[in-house]
Amino acid sequence: MSGVRALYAQASGSPIRAMLALAGLPDMVSLAGGHPDPALLPIDWVHDGLRGVLADSNPEALQYGPTEGLPALREASAALLSTCGLRSTAGDVLVTTGSQQGIDLLARVLVEPGDAVAVARFNYPAAVQSLRFAGARFAPLDSDAHGLRTDTLEQQLRASGARVLYLVPNFGNPGGDLLPLERRLQLLQVAARLDVTVIEDDPYGELWFDAPPPPTLAALNQQAGSPVRVVYLTSFSKTVAPALRLGIVRAPPEIARAVVIAKQAADVHSGTLEQRALVAMLAGARLDEHLAALRAAYAIKRDALVTALHRHAAKLLTFDRPGGGMFVWARLHPDMPLLDNEAWLAFGREHRVLVVPGSAFTIDTTPQPWLRLSFANPSASALVLGAERLGAGLARLVPSR
Amino acid sequence: MSGVRALYAQASGSPIRAMLALAGLPDMVSLAGGHPDPALLPIDWVHDGLRGVLADSNPEALQYGPTEGLPALREASAALLSTCGLRSTAGDVLVTTGSQQGIDLLARVLVEPGDAVAVARFNYPAAVQSLRFAGARFAPLDSDAHGLRTDTLEQQLRASGARVLYLVPNFGNPGGDLLPLERRLQLLQVAARLDVTVIEDDPYGELWFDAPPPPTLAALNQQAGSPVRVVYLTSFSKTVAPALRLGIVRAPPEIARAVVIAKQAADVHSGTLEQRALVAMLAGARLDEHLAALRAAYAIKRDALVTALHRHAAKLLTFDRPGGGMFVWARLHPDMPLLDNEAWLAFGREHRVLVVPGSAFTIDTTPQPWLRLSFANPSASALVLGAERLGAGLARLVPSR
Repeated sequence: MSGVRALYAQASGSPIRAMLALAGLPDMVSLAGGHPDPALLPIDWVHDGLRGVLADSNPEALQYGPTEGLPALREASAALLSTCGLRSTAGDVLVTTGSQQGIDLLARVLVEPGDAVAVARFNYPAAVQSLRFAGARFAPLDSDAHGLRTDTLEQQLRASGARVLYLVPNFGNPGGDLLPLERRLQLLQVAARLDVTVIEDDPYGELWFDAPPPPTLAALNQQAGSPVRVVYLTSFSKTVAPALRLGIVRAPPEIARAVVIAKQAADVHSGTLEQRALVAMLAGARLDEHLAALRAAYAIKRDALVTALHRHAAKLLTFDRPGGGMFVWARLHPDMPLLDNEAWLAFGREHRVLVVPGSAFTIDTTPQPWLRLSFANPSASALVLGAERLGAGLARLVPSR
Repeated sequence: MSGVRALYAQASGSPIRAMLALAGLPDMVSLAGGHPDPALLPIDWVHDGLRGVLADSNPEALQYGPTEGLPALREASAALLSTCGLRSTAGDVLVTTGSQQGIDLLARVLVEPGDAVAVARFNYPAAVQSLRFAGARFAPLDSDAHGLRTDTLEQQLRASGARVLYLVPNFGNPGGDLLPLERRLQLLQVAARLDVTVIEDDPYGELWFDAPPPPTLAALNQQAGSPVRVVYLTSFSKTVAPALRLGIVRAPPEIARAVVIAKQAADVHSGTLEQRALVAMLAGARLDEHLAALRAAYAIKRDALVTALHRHAAKLLTFDRPGGGMFVWARLHPDMPLLDNEAWLAFGREHRVLVVPGSAFTIDTTPQPWLRLSFANPSASALVLGAERLGAGLARLVPSR
C-alpha cells in the first residue's frame, strides 16, 4: 500500500525525459530536446530586469501577491496581445507559473472526470498528461501537414460529444505545422455550432521564420464578435526564458474566475520576483529585438537540419520544412520496422544521435512511423552531424536498402 | 453555459479575501490578515541572494530546471530538516511553488474523488479548498485547545474510513494550538493501526516564542522506525518571504514519485531564480539570526494583542496565549449572537477593526462563536487599538451587558 491513487501510481514518466537522460553521454548529438539553445537565452537582459528588482528596497515586494498576477505584468502582457491582434486589457490577462500551469488549471476547471476532450492525434505530452490527470477521455481528431483537418472536425466532435478542444495552431509540438487561416475560421464556426470551448495553446507563435502566422483563433473570434469560448495561452518560456516560469491565460470572464479560484488553491500566486523582473524587461524595445534575433538564429538552425536531412536521410524520411517553432516532424520510410521506445533508446546509444519517436506524442504510446527532430538546442554543426548519423542508422534498419 | 465545472463555478472566493478588501479603508485596523509584518520581511537578505544570482552569467541558468527542485536547494533544505530532528538527504526533499502547491499536489495524488479525508473541525481554508477540489469528502475530527484529540481519534477515523489525515501540529491556522508530544505519539500509533497517510503541514513550527515545539510527527515516526506514511510539508513563506513561493515536501518514495509526476504536469518546476537566490541566502548563518529576530518581534506583538484583549475584551472573549505562530483564536461569549460573514464585514466597517469569523475555517462555513485575531501584520500600537475597538464593538452586540 503506497496510498497513491492509481492514476498517478501508474503514470509513466515522460519518454522524452528517458531520452534526454542519455544526452550527457560523450559524443552524443541530441535532436530530442525541446529546450531553447542556451546561446539564445538572454542572460544580460534578464539580469538587467533583476537589477530593476534590486532598485526597489520596499519590503512589501516580498509580501504575498495577487493570484491574478502583478497588475503591471498583466498590463504589459495585455499590450503584447493587443499588438498581435487580440485586443486586451490588464483585467483580461492572468499570469500563471509557466503556460503549463495554465493548461493544468484549465484542465481542472473545464474537464469533468470522464468528459471527452478533442485533441490532435499527436500532441504535446505534458498537455495530454494534465488533461489525463483531470480525468479526460481523449477524442482524437484527424490532422495532416496543415494541422487539424476541418473537413472531418464537426463529425468527429459530434461523434465523441467533446465539449473541449485543445490545439496548438502555430508550429506545434511535435508537428511543427501551421493551421491555415481558412481552417481557423472553419474551426470557430464548428465550435460555435457545437458549443465547444477551445483551448488555444500558443507558445511558438512568435517564433516564425518566413512569415508571421495568421491571426490567432482568439483574435479571429473577437473580430467576428463570435460567441465561442476561446481560451488563449502563451508563454514567456520560448520567447524569453523557461526559468522565469511565467505564462499567461486570456479567458472569457467566467472561465477566468474559475482559473483564479483554482490557482488560489494550486500555488496562491506565481513568483513576484520574476514578474517584477519581466515588467522591467518589457519596458523597452528589447523584446522585439530579441524576437528578431531568435527568429533569425532558429531559422538558420532549421535550415541546417533540413538541408542535412535532405542530404543524408532523404530516402528514409519524409518531412516538411517548418515555418517556425523548434521541430521537424519526419515520417519514416514504410519499409522501416516500427520500433518501441526502448529500441529508439538503443538506437540513440548505438548511433550517438537522440530522437523522440512519434509514440511519445500519442495518447496510448503505441509505436508510430514518425520521429520528432528538434533543431532548437544543438549548434548548426551538431545538427548536420546528427542528421548524418540518423541517416546512417536508419539505413541499417531498412532491410532491402 | 460557461463551460466551467460546477465544482469551480460554485466555489466561493475566500471570505478572508473579502475581509482584506476592506483593510485599505482609512483608519482601519486589520486583525484579519495572515500576512507577515512587512517590517520583518528581510529585503536586504533577499537582495543579497539575488546579487548572488547575478554573479553567475551562465545562460544555462535560464534553462528548464529539474521538477524535483535544484539539487543545491534540496541539499540545503535537507540539512535544515536534519537540524530539526528529521534526518534527510537531498533526495528526500522536493521543492514546490510554496507549500500551498505541496498540499495541492498531495491532495491530487492521495485523494480519490469521494475519499474521506480527516481534518480538524477548524482548518486553514486553502488546504480545505485543495482537498475539496480533489474530490475529498471531509471527516471532521474533534480538537481542543491542544489540537486534535487523540482519545476519540481512532473511533472517528474508523467511522469515516478516512485513509488520509491532514493536520497542522504547530501553532496552526486558525487555532494557534500546539499538539503535545504525547498526542503526537498516540496519533502515530493510531495511523499505524489504521494505515492512514498523515499529511503534516508545518509552516509555523519555527515561529515559536516561548519554547521550541516537540519533534515533528515525521521525526518521531522516523525515530520509532514506524511504518506510517508521514508526508511533511514546510514553507519559506513565513520564515523568509511569501513572494519567493518556495516550499518543501518530504514524502515516502512512492508518494514522492507521484508528487513529481503530478508537478511535471502542474508547472514543470518552481522558479529557479528564487531557488538560486535562496541557496545563496541559506549559505551562512543569516537564517538562524533572522528566525531569532522574528521570534522576538512576533512574541512582542503577541503579548501586545493578548494584553490588550485582556484589558478591553476579557469579558467577551475566551482565548489562550499562543506559544507561536500568528494567531489568537478567541471564543465569543455565549450571549453573543452568531453572526454570518456579511455581518462581520459590517462589524468591521462600523468599528474600524477587521477580524475573521470562525466560519471561514470550517468545511460548511456555518456561523461559529469564534474569531481569528492575527497579530502578525499590524504594529503593536495598532494591535492595542484593534483590541480596544473590538472590545467596544462586541460589547454592543451582547444584549444585557
